[in-house]
Amino acid sequence: MLTFYYAPGSCALASLIALQESGLAFEHRRLILANGDQRQPDYLAINPKGRVPALVTDKGVLTENIAILAYIAQIAPAAKLAPLDDPFEFGQMQAFNSYLSSTVHVNHAHKGRGTRWTDDAAAIETMKAKVPQTMTESFALLEDKLLKGPWVMGEQYTVADCYLFTMAKWLPGDNVDRDQFAKVSAHYARMLERPAVQTALAIDEG
Amino acid sequence: MLTFYYAPGSCALASLIALQESGLAFEHRRLILANGDQRQPDYLAINPKGRVPALVTDKGVLTENIAILAYIAQIAPAAKLAPLDDPFEFGQMQAFNSYLSSTVHVNHAHKGRGTRWTDDAAAIETMKAKVPQTMTESFALLEDKLLKGPWVMGEQYTVADCYLFTMAKWLPGDNVDRDQFAKVSAHYARMLERPAVQTALAIDEG
Ligand SMILES: N[C@@H](CCC(=O)N[C@@H](CS)C(=O)NCC(=O)O)C(=O)O
Ligand SMILES: N[C@@H](CCC(=O)N[C@@H](CS)C(=O)NCC(=O)O)C(=O)O
Repeated sequence: MLTFYYAPGSCALASLIALQESGLAFEHRRLILANGDQRQPDYLAINPKGRVPALVTDKGVLTENIAILAYIAQIAPAAKLAPLDDPFEFGQMQAFNSYLSSTVHVNHAHKGRGTRWTDDAAAIETMKAKVPQTMTESFALLEDKLLKGPWVMGEQYTVADCYLFTMAKWLPGDNVDRDQFAKVSAHYARMLERPAVQTALAIDEG
Repeated sequence: MLTFYYAPGSCALASLIALQESGLAFEHRRLILANGDQRQPDYLAINPKGRVPALVTDKGVLTENIAILAYIAQIAPAAKLAPLDDPFEFGQMQAFNSYLSSTVHVNHAHKGRGTRWTDDAAAIETMKAKVPQTMTESFALLEDKLLKGPWVMGEQYTVADCYLFTMAKWLPGDNVDRDQFAKVSAHYARMLERPAVQTALAIDEG
């Protein structure tokens, strides 16, 4: 059995969508980040980083979207959620996901999590002020160079689509107009039509 | 043929070590970040992100250490650089690497690359000031929770070891005493004994 820990509005949505797409059976447990659920001892025993997502499997716990997304694709091969048989194509998918987690998500986090990197209140305000710019630049790169279309990897829908959708969902809240990115916007609309995305959003929104 | 783009002192060392460990034939091309080589048009045509590492293969270009490391392990299975046959173990390795790229490397980058996230000179100084603390906290987590020992994944040496070594190499420059982390320090010393690491360091140091 798989048990998935998520928080509404968080990056965990990426893995939640992938779980829905996979057809795997799983339970989901909700954490409220604003209440500090992620720092309670019972959750730290699952994920000592105090972050979501976390996926509890029969073998142990997996954290980090990149790892969970690839794992879901690998244990549910019939769902064809990754180019599992081609190391180069798989690598391109992982590179896309890595850009999202190490650059795009990090840019976004400077809006609400500035205390990770500075203790100075004025500095935090200057970080927040730059988020629209950094998110716009990141999405311009995604739009122009990385998103093949119609799906991230081209014709094959993969877990990278779940992750891109999750980051694109944050754009309005980051004061970035999603419509300026034609391919990203079309991708976002296409994702909203998928039953797995609708189910995941219903869980996420509770 | 593989062509690997790196820069001395950068995170590309992780993939450079893995290439050496793999036994794969490759050429290496040196960029000097301080000179802005990574933003020259010829390099941007290879990696539009303007970052190292990048690995040019017969099929196209791979970027991002996480992706390159897994790719090397997959195309050189005889070198046994990853638990390729076990999705859960592979996921744990990817989760470890993802923590390094999305948290540890990002913490470190607030020392020298603060302009990514703020335009304010005073704010950048406050970010720099917090780097010793964030790197200490990250390495405490690596030491206490994530590094199984003797290697990252336990008995099997993997590409995650190449990546951990690269991050641990930065600690003195970040004003963090590596010796306070017994397992990390022992791992670092063990890595220095490996011929592949010595060769990679010789290339890196030019
Ligand atoms: N690199 C991790 C990032 C995980 C992460 O930062 N999650 C956020 C939610 S979007 C979180 O749990 N934040 C809670 C906190 O910082 O206290 C991944 O991709 O899974
Ligand atoms: N997430 C990327 C990060 C790549 C990265 O930031 N590389 C740095 C060197 S450590 C770089 O090229 N910096 C050049 C610059 O920012 O201009 C990875 O893990 O490969």
